[in-house]
Amino acid sequence: MENDKKHISTIGQRIPRADSALIASGEAQYLDDIRIPGMLHGRILRSPHPHAKIRSIDTRKAERVLGVKAVITAADTPKIPFCHMPVTPNKLPLCSDKVRFIGDEVAAVAALDVDIAEEAVSLIQVEYEILPAVFDPLEAMKPDAPMLYDDCEKNIASRLVRNFGDVAKGLSEADFVFEDVFELPRVASCTLEPHGCIAQIDSQGNLTVWSSTQSITNIHEELGIPLGLPLHKIRVIAPFVGGAFGNKSVILPLEPITAFLARKAQRPVKIVTTREEEFTCSRTRYAMIIRLKTGVKKDGAITFRDAQVITDNGAYNNKAQGITMVTCNRIGNLYRVPHVRTEALIVYTNNQYGGALRGWGGPQAHFAVESQMDIIANQIGFDPLDFRLRNANQPGDKTVWGWEITSCGFSDCLRRAAQEIGWPKRREKKKFRGIGIAGAVHSGGGSMGAHGPANFEEVLVKLNSDGTVNVSVGCVDMGQGSSTVLAQIVAEELGVDTKEVKVITPDTDNAPRTMGPWGSRITFIAGNAARKAAAEVKSKMLTLAKDLLDVTDTAHLGFENGEIFVRNTLAKHLGIREVTEYFSRHFGQAILGRGFYNPENTVPPDRTTGYGNTSPAYSFCAHAAEVEVDPETGKVEVIKIVAAHDIGKAINPMLVEGQIDGGIAMGIGYALLEELKFDNGKTLNPTFAGYKILNSTEKPRLHHILIETDDPNGPFGAKGVGEIAMIPTAPAIANAIYDAVGVRIKELPISQGKILKALKEKVNSI
Amino acid sequence: MENDKKHISTIGQRIPRADSALIASGEAQYLDDIRIPGMLHGRILRSPHPHAKIRSIDTRKAERVLGVKAVITAADTPKIPFCHMPVTPNKLPLCSDKVRFIGDEVAAVAALDVDIAEEAVSLIQVEYEILPAVFDPLEAMKPDAPMLYDDCEKNIASRLVRNFGDVAKGLSEADFVFEDVFELPRVASCTLEPHGCIAQIDSQGNLTVWSSTQSITNIHEELGIPLGLPLHKIRVIAPFVGGAFGNKSVILPLEPITAFLARKAQRPVKIVTTREEEFTCSRTRYAMIIRLKTGVKKDGAITFRDAQVITDNGAYNNKAQGITMVTCNRIGNLYRVPHVRTEALIVYTNNQYGGALRGWGGPQAHFAVESQMDIIANQIGFDPLDFRLRNANQPGDKTVWGWEITSCGFSDCLRRAAQEIGWPKRREKKKFRGIGIAGAVHSGGGSMGAHGPANFEEVLVKLNSDGTVNVSVGCVDMGQGSSTVLAQIVAEELGVDTKEVKVITPDTDNAPRTMGPWGSRITFIAGNAARKAAAEVKSKMLTLAKDLLDVTDTAHLGFENGEIFVRNTLAKHLGIREVTEYFSRHFGQAILGRGFYNPENTVPPDRTTGYGNTSPAYSFCAHAAEVEVDPETGKVEVIKIVAAHDIGKAINPMLVEGQIDGGIAMGIGYALLEELKFDNGKTLNPTFAGYKILNSTEKPRLHHILIETDDPNGPFGAKGVGEIAMIPTAPAIANAIYDAVGVRIKELPISQGKILKALKEKVNSI
Repeated sequence: MENDKKHISTIGQRIPRADSALIASGEAQYLDDIRIPGMLHGRILRSPHPHAKIRSIDTRKAERVLGVKAVITAADTPKIPFCHMPVTPNKLPLCSDKVRFIGDEVAAVAALDVDIAEEAVSLIQVEYEILPAVFDPLEAMKPDAPMLYDDCEKNIASRLVRNFGDVAKGLSEADFVFEDVFELPRVASCTLEPHGCIAQIDSQGNLTVWSSTQSITNIHEELGIPLGLPLHKIRVIAPFVGGAFGNKSVILPLEPITAFLARKAQRPVKIVTTREEEFTCSRTRYAMIIRLKTGVKKDGAITFRDAQVITDNGAYNNKAQGITMVTCNRIGNLYRVPHVRTEALIVYTNNQYGGALRGWGGPQAHFAVESQMDIIANQIGFDPLDFRLRNANQPGDKTVWGWEITSCGFSDCLRRAAQEIGWPKRREKKKFRGIGIAGAVHSGGGSMGAHGPANFEEVLVKLNSDGTVNVSVGCVDMGQGSSTVLAQIVAEELGVDTKEVKVITPDTDNAPRTMGPWGSRITFIAGNAARKAAAEVKSKMLTLAKDLLDVTDTAHLGFENGEIFVRNTLAKHLGIREVTEYFSRHFGQAILGRGFYNPENTVPPDRTTGYGNTSPAYSFCAHAAEVEVDPETGKVEVIKIVAAHDIGKAINPMLVEGQIDGGIAMGIGYALLEELKFDNGKTLNPTFAGYKILNSTEKPRLHHILIETDDPNGPFGAKGVGEIAMIPTAPAIANAIYDAVGVRIKELPISQGKILKALKEKVNSI
Repeated sequence: MENDKKHISTIGQRIPRADSALIASGEAQYLDDIRIPGMLHGRILRSPHPHAKIRSIDTRKAERVLGVKAVITAADTPKIPFCHMPVTPNKLPLCSDKVRFIGDEVAAVAALDVDIAEEAVSLIQVEYEILPAVFDPLEAMKPDAPMLYDDCEKNIASRLVRNFGDVAKGLSEADFVFEDVFELPRVASCTLEPHGCIAQIDSQGNLTVWSSTQSITNIHEELGIPLGLPLHKIRVIAPFVGGAFGNKSVILPLEPITAFLARKAQRPVKIVTTREEEFTCSRTRYAMIIRLKTGVKKDGAITFRDAQVITDNGAYNNKAQGITMVTCNRIGNLYRVPHVRTEALIVYTNNQYGGALRGWGGPQAHFAVESQMDIIANQIGFDPLDFRLRNANQPGDKTVWGWEITSCGFSDCLRRAAQEIGWPKRREKKKFRGIGIAGAVHSGGGSMGAHGPANFEEVLVKLNSDGTVNVSVGCVDMGQGSSTVLAQIVAEELGVDTKEVKVITPDTDNAPRTMGPWGSRITFIAGNAARKAAAEVKSKMLTLAKDLLDVTDTAHLGFENGEIFVRNTLAKHLGIREVTEYFSRHFGQAILGRGFYNPENTVPPDRTTGYGNTSPAYSFCAHAAEVEVDPETGKVEVIKIVAAHDIGKAINPMLVEGQIDGGIAMGIGYALLEELKFDNGKTLNPTFAGYKILNSTEKPRLHHILIETDDPNGPFGAKGVGEIAMIPTAPAIANAIYDAVGVRIKELPISQGKILKALKEKVNSI
């Protein structure tokens, strides 16, 4: 007689985000909501020149403004570059001898209010010696180009070649060879909340920092360097974060500047960047030029790819190496490509410098690859869907780059997205309407490489004495709902209601060390860690319950829905609360589980060749788009997007769909609207009036297809979805536009002007 | 060839408190320094009657006052008694039907400022039906006395008899029998900082409480009950605490009242009690009447003790049972007493109720015991010092009550204190000068009993990636310097500088569960836990270093002063920082150690008999006092106090001496000055003008003798000193007064009036 305990699973439930009510009610405290008694407000003086020597800085007038409490320049900060990426950092918090882009940080002021600070900033007199500047990476590589750094040949920050298989052999086997050049613009992250920081430093040098960051550990460990503080004297707290998209994943000049101001003023200081600063001085998605050469056989098999990726690094090192490597490996990994060669050139220019932004180099790579897949299919007489299916990665594949594909629903994604968008009847469509499809692959659980050999998270799960659960994580929920997903995973493992689980706001004083949310890694990596921590708690509870229920072995015990019971009896059972109350009364300490996860099925990329299996799982998807193009105006209306995603398992389908919807909106913007425009390094459209993103009223019909492939290593089978959601939208739209009006635009965004111009050229060429 | 790594120990160093500079500079944030945006200020309406029925409460006028945001009465709170001590709680946050002492909580108001709240409180109209009241516990036990509770015979809250050995046998063996009655007053804790609480509750019911508490876990777990909140929805944070002395060790009505106001007003609320409230409504030291009967042989051996302790419980249950049991067992345990019987009567009266205060029942017991020891010695012709030494506990003793004495320097304390005060030359003293001595025993590491079978703390030690150390504890440093001592213990175990160790402010979201600082337990219990946690960290580091230094076994490694080195070589060594940096880069998570300590050498007191070894170690001391009495005025000047303390090992002699100095000041106040005076339940002296404590200018010469007995179970041999420091001062002074002018005052405080009266009676009796 088995106890009839029916398992009520929280996995797969559409549970609203734990913090949604607080966000909706306005109670959630974002950085700018925080007020510290005595707090000053800071502003930053930025360079008006793209390239100049600083001859002198005179802050005397600024210091004399009533209400100004501190003015700092490079003279107040050590000449230690910060932001330790895999490449050598070369950015100082405040420029000492040279400025290298318009917006470069030169000085800063803390004052009683923002107006006073701005007035004082305007009174700082900087004498510049203007230097010639270069804005185009192709120009920058020319021998006579102005040089940003003395020790850097041709402004090339780095050149990385990857070579797998034998491209010459692939070329010899090809019946057709295609070569296209794609251009990708610089775009902004457009987080709802701008960057912000509050720093408070006491007379003993103890520094507390509140930062709208994705990664408290990054801020914590990086801040110690310029400030010369040991880490136990620094505490970093992340309040609610209103969107980040990778743009808040590493330290900015903002944090050390705020801390230096606080130290000099001996008062807390807050700096929140303006929207204009967000557009002009925060990290952008890297602009790239991708030259993509692909060989195919008549039977549709891809024989090789050879690509050159030129990345506009901007003025300082940040994430360009890691991101460009992602661009390169996406070129070799979504389809079965036996021979791949990529050359990456990362070039300094006097432009605003780039950084991480949803998808790393994936959106750039996939626009090129998935546009060219259609070009090839159309040329060699294949249906673009069939051509993709012919070459698609399959479960169990080991790619030429070393990726080991475990779960893979890519072909399913392609088929089902195509079905839903009306692929079988695509030839019956209205005039000027078209449909297109594109696929994507992305890390489904973070990756190794740019960040060293680790890809970890740690989670602590603590039972309160009433059986409710505190979960301590380092990773910030930047708005994607990761805390809710982690609460679900812990609740599922413990058999309790998700409402009884609290995920605690990250704070370096107490939280486990974290790598932070990027690379679509939290569900997979922190989820596995959370599950392990909860499993340890469960095991401890079962051991206790064994004694309380007089059984000899925990194997005799069942555990469902918050109750522990003796199998094959009806009567005996204990609630979690009974166990925890007993334990806290008799022993004292809380029942604590510690879960650490670093995938075992990954292979760090080889330092020389780049070969490796960098991610423990790969997420796949296909977006299909239906568009209508107005041939008179070139205006594109996106009618419908179908998003078919292999997410392994949807822990919370509502949140998965939320991620996908947001990704599609970003993807449509990337396809049609978004571009930071510059004139000699000056941003021409640093406002939402000038910089168009998709308006909520312009949202097309969206259709979600969640394909659950049950990843063998994901928590309850899940894989990440955060970044991939935006990746194939742009090429799907580009392909649909081609389907609608027969023009192929290889340069994003696909503006009305570009379409009109192409239509005109097409007509002229007939 | 051994590496010449000299161990630089932090143990025994006079290191200033880690937070002393912040406290001195005014930067330390105490409860009242905290400001939350939108915060209201609360005041409490208290009963003006010692005993009355509440007929009605009309809050309408109060609610109409501009700026009032919430008014609450018992109608707004559930009728659930809180403060779960071993006895049944019978106090509601707000009285519903009856008030039982002047100051009992009746209603509360939250308003924009304190003045508005006070005005509104004054407008609440309560209709009382006044009941007869009783204030003397002896009166309260009479058959016709007014009854505080319906179900309680003779107002006796509890009667507890302890009987070890055979008192009748002891009586038959005695050559002399002495019987004296001692009376101990109600005294106030006089913490520099009053009680205070801030409560903030969001629309989802998540409650954050800042409380000037000793025990975040107590507030956390108790608050859930009246508020009906699961524990993961409650977060309790202790800011800097400005003195507590046990008075802040358990929840007060203050915390639930503040939380209910915050819930009703939907805004944060702060209540800080006034000094008058501190004197009239916070918990006092219990007033007691101790009837002590002792038998001795001619050779000075004590044959039995029989005692009755009557405790004025006041109006509500709190700590009287536990504290009176401490009083009782101190009567049986400082000296070798073969037969002991104690009867405790805990009696309800309409007085302000008592609670924990430095030393629990120890000060009361020791005043009786150590006064009577002198009475007996003087009567039977023994030197009081010799009489004590004749009967003193010795290392290895197992007392009749079940105590197992491990380290014990009591005889040394007596001898050395006597030597220093000039005992050998005592007969050469000036007229009206006298010297006296008294000893004491107290738990040296907390105790079991009143709080259940546990006596635990847990500590987490985390290495930052630069090798600095974060220590997470639940126990609050209430001003005694425990965080500095814990930092020293961790630093010593890890071989780093104490400056590189941070002890983190307690916060229930993250801190380990705690019992809090009371019973002089933190150095011993949390110290052992901290040492274990640090030892785990060290062991993990050695394992890592083994691989890095290419040795096969950690036994080949030495570890001193933050460096790990290979024994018998000169060259190879690693700093902690190198190990942590390597670990964090390659593995990711921080090196974390978890230490839990609950003593193994204790025996919980038997539920029926009370027999047991409740403490893992016992601290001993002797204070010797020199006084001069002015026979004209009865004024006593304390010339010098010698304090000889067996503290096992002084982790930080400066802090030990600080504790002792504070204890002596409190002890002198208890001896000569302090008493809450009442008239029909009304406090007559609720101000520092009326309630005299020892002024810093009146401090006598102090001489410290630290006796290190190296306790076998204490961390580095240490035992607690916090409470015992104040215990023997009063009887030492009473004995010195007797020595000076020949009058024996058995009722504290020994006021000028009592001395004059006794001197007059003495003259009359000659």
